[in-house]
Amino acid sequence: MLKIGWAGLPQLDRASIVPLYRQIYEHLRSAILAGTLPESARLPPERMMAERLGVNRSTVVHAYRDLSAEGLIAQRVGSGSRVAPQAGRLERAASVPWWVTLPPWRVGEFPNILGELAAKQEAGRISFVQGVAPDEPSPLADLAASFTRAARDARLVLSYGDSEGYGPLREAIAARMVARGVLGAQPRNVIALTGSTQGIMIVAQSLAEPGDEIIVESPSYPGALQIFQICGLRAIPVPVDDEGMRVDHVEAILRTRRPRFIYTMPSLHNPTNATMNADRRLRLATIAQRAGVPIVEDDPYGPLAPPQTPLIALAPDSVVYLSTFSKTIAPSLRIGWLVAPHVIVERLLLRKQAYDMASSLYVQAAVLDYLQRGYDAHVEELRKELLRRREIADASIAKHWPRSVRTAPARGGFYLWATTPRDVRARALLDAAERRGASFLFGEAFYAGSGGDHQFRLALTAVKREEIGKGIARIGEAISSLMRA
Amino acid sequence: MLKIGWAGLPQLDRASIVPLYRQIYEHLRSAILAGTLPESARLPPERMMAERLGVNRSTVVHAYRDLSAEGLIAQRVGSGSRVAPQAGRLERAASVPWWVTLPPWRVGEFPNILGELAAKQEAGRISFVQGVAPDEPSPLADLAASFTRAARDARLVLSYGDSEGYGPLREAIAARMVARGVLGAQPRNVIALTGSTQGIMIVAQSLAEPGDEIIVESPSYPGALQIFQICGLRAIPVPVDDEGMRVDHVEAILRTRRPRFIYTMPSLHNPTNATMNADRRLRLATIAQRAGVPIVEDDPYGPLAPPQTPLIALAPDSVVYLSTFSKTIAPSLRIGWLVAPHVIVERLLLRKQAYDMASSLYVQAAVLDYLQRGYDAHVEELRKELLRRREIADASIAKHWPRSVRTAPARGGFYLWATTPRDVRARALLDAAERRGASFLFGEAFYAGSGGDHQFRLALTAVKREEIGKGIARIGEAISSLMRA
Repeated sequence: MLKIGWAGLPQLDRASIVPLYRQIYEHLRSAILAGTLPESARLPPERMMAERLGVNRSTVVHAYRDLSAEGLIAQRVGSGSRVAPQAGRLERAASVPWWVTLPPWRVGEFPNILGELAAKQEAGRISFVQGVAPDEPSPLADLAASFTRAARDARLVLSYGDSEGYGPLREAIAARMVARGVLGAQPRNVIALTGSTQGIMIVAQSLAEPGDEIIVESPSYPGALQIFQICGLRAIPVPVDDEGMRVDHVEAILRTRRPRFIYTMPSLHNPTNATMNADRRLRLATIAQRAGVPIVEDDPYGPLAPPQTPLIALAPDSVVYLSTFSKTIAPSLRIGWLVAPHVIVERLLLRKQAYDMASSLYVQAAVLDYLQRGYDAHVEELRKELLRRREIADASIAKHWPRSVRTAPARGGFYLWATTPRDVRARALLDAAERRGASFLFGEAFYAGSGGDHQFRLALTAVKREEIGKGIARIGEAISSLMRA
Repeated sequence: MLKIGWAGLPQLDRASIVPLYRQIYEHLRSAILAGTLPESARLPPERMMAERLGVNRSTVVHAYRDLSAEGLIAQRVGSGSRVAPQAGRLERAASVPWWVTLPPWRVGEFPNILGELAAKQEAGRISFVQGVAPDEPSPLADLAASFTRAARDARLVLSYGDSEGYGPLREAIAARMVARGVLGAQPRNVIALTGSTQGIMIVAQSLAEPGDEIIVESPSYPGALQIFQICGLRAIPVPVDDEGMRVDHVEAILRTRRPRFIYTMPSLHNPTNATMNADRRLRLATIAQRAGVPIVEDDPYGPLAPPQTPLIALAPDSVVYLSTFSKTIAPSLRIGWLVAPHVIVERLLLRKQAYDMASSLYVQAAVLDYLQRGYDAHVEELRKELLRRREIADASIAKHWPRSVRTAPARGGFYLWATTPRDVRARALLDAAERRGASFLFGEAFYAGSGGDHQFRLALTAVKREEIGKGIARIGEAISSLMRA
């Protein structure tokens, strides 16, 4: 019986972009199809092949598995792998659906979280899940007028527009960034985004490669964590306290590691609602600049936060800034923006183009119209409403929740972050609360590693104001039921 | 003077997601920062290091370069690489801007093409560049009414909506797919996209990995080629003739190679305007199914094409179908859709979520309203307009262009694909035409490899109807000027 000689082994190119297992696979596949490896020839055992090639055994296993899935070789326990009969090969390949051999799928433990965040609410349940702006104050009437005005200019509807975004909108955004202290912000630093989620994906794929390390807050926004996971980035978690990210931890990490970037939400952090104090901001900007590690400043809630200097104002060359109109106007607009050092704007723009060519020019034009009219008054009303909702929540919690449940202090913001007593796990609490007609997001979804099993997040904005108290009372009942148990 | 012993070398994990150069870099960096590799220690020469580790020299060069950029080692010609003094290391690192050491940037030869395609038109010039629908018939009046109606429902504006898209719109799309012969199409097979470009990026990142091979038409849509390049996919080109993709070439390739997918635009192909005939469609569907290689059917112009069975109707389990309302209604909507076997919908959806969470619910609702009212009549008018424009173009060409310029025959469609005589290169022609106030896209942008230097594409829809003749006359003058020269 024929065996493959070692002379027939693939020459691996370790610098190639083609994965090693795929090089082995392609080499053997060609040899089989060309007849160099005839029917019934025995392939070297995986371990021997791996040793000869200087690769891990799993690399060979992976290559053989794909050949087997296609029916090119037959693997049998005890007798190893042999080249399969050629006749009917193509037909057998078809017997394995193509999706079985797709590339490995990197998703986290909670792959439906982004979907949850985007999902519509269920009827009857008081759902504190979605991070949406409250129904009142409503921008709708003014916004509808802005859309009507934008529709009058046919060019705004019937063309793609520039990939970097609608020029006049980018000018307006740059001017607002200057007003917030980012003195060098110009339209050429600004790219309009289809929501700030798009900005997170852009930095994840433009500033890093699979396998690279990054620094993230712990807890952090689950949507961002999921994106980093899909992109194969390795998250180094840094804790958050009432004053924001623990910058001293960042400093310690940068002494020995060189992550690709630091992802932080310094104002009204999701989920804790913490706003980083001025000292930490300055320190973070300084150490990041000194270490040559860029900061990704995710600032969806910035315009609603107590006034603070954005990180990008402190270190304009070291920060990619992301924000959105989803929280201040309406999520359905899907319009956000990024501000970045001009030298990397083209790199970021090429990714944005690949994701969706350009954000809707028509919607951008409507947003600009609204920015010039009702926006500032609306944001002011919204800020007041957020403070009022938090007061209502705090009063209800004092009445309905045991003292042993701790809540993170905050001024305004969308969220309330709570820690349960030792005997109440957040997932069990969610079950109990759902049975009573209330829901929220459990804490584990906010952690890149372990953590959060005794924490949960309420989006106080996701329900009608008059239901906040009722929902908190239902959750209180659920907590009590678990503590009694 | 100290040297590193071979015992201190990194253990490479060849199956790891972390690139080898990065593993070497991280190992040496840790050793330097930990003091294991003290100041002034000499690193092994790149060639020796590469031999010992069994990697290519370029891998080591890459690792050393990054260490050097950070100021951790000093490289000097003649005396090799040494560990740099620790003091002031962080400061030196900052002297190299962080963007210098970003991951390699994979872009093609024409990285601005997607931008060009999206760009607004220049005043005064007759620009046949952008693939936009003609200004007449205009959907604007009806569309504005649809937006107004959609704005009446606050939930459609003030929430994110499901990531897979607005349910009623997905139902309407599924029903229209059924009417086109895709009998099994159901809403659960449909994902709403932010334009079909997003669908191309989704398949490029979900169905393949960097280094994988795919089959593309040659020529093909430059936006798709650029996305494939950014994603590190290796394109195997297959020629297109007047009857569409040369399926016999695909068959030959599938005999010896296993590409991840076959990307084709079978109806009103961009740029040739060719529509694949029924025989080839059946054959392509059959061989792809048999080989277990999925087809990505990009069909932005499908509703405007002569009636043909979509590939997904012939092999529903082997096709991911992409289309858009950008060509039939308006590009500024940024609404497209995909149809895929249900088993892979979740995988595709997770990517879509990462790109932008969800497409605008408000715009989707307006599109649905328009679909139920003016859409079909508008598409019918548009089809007639495309035929009329092609007739005008053909008549002008007969009058103004030398016979030696060949044009691809086509019924309707947006584009006219032309081949220049041997002595006229398309890029030189573009220069000459621009000086005369007309522009177009040169052919090379449509090829993954070489080709196209004597071809160019006119978007007949991008100009006013009465300017088609004038623009073609100007291009004719440009051709003549080059032929005389």
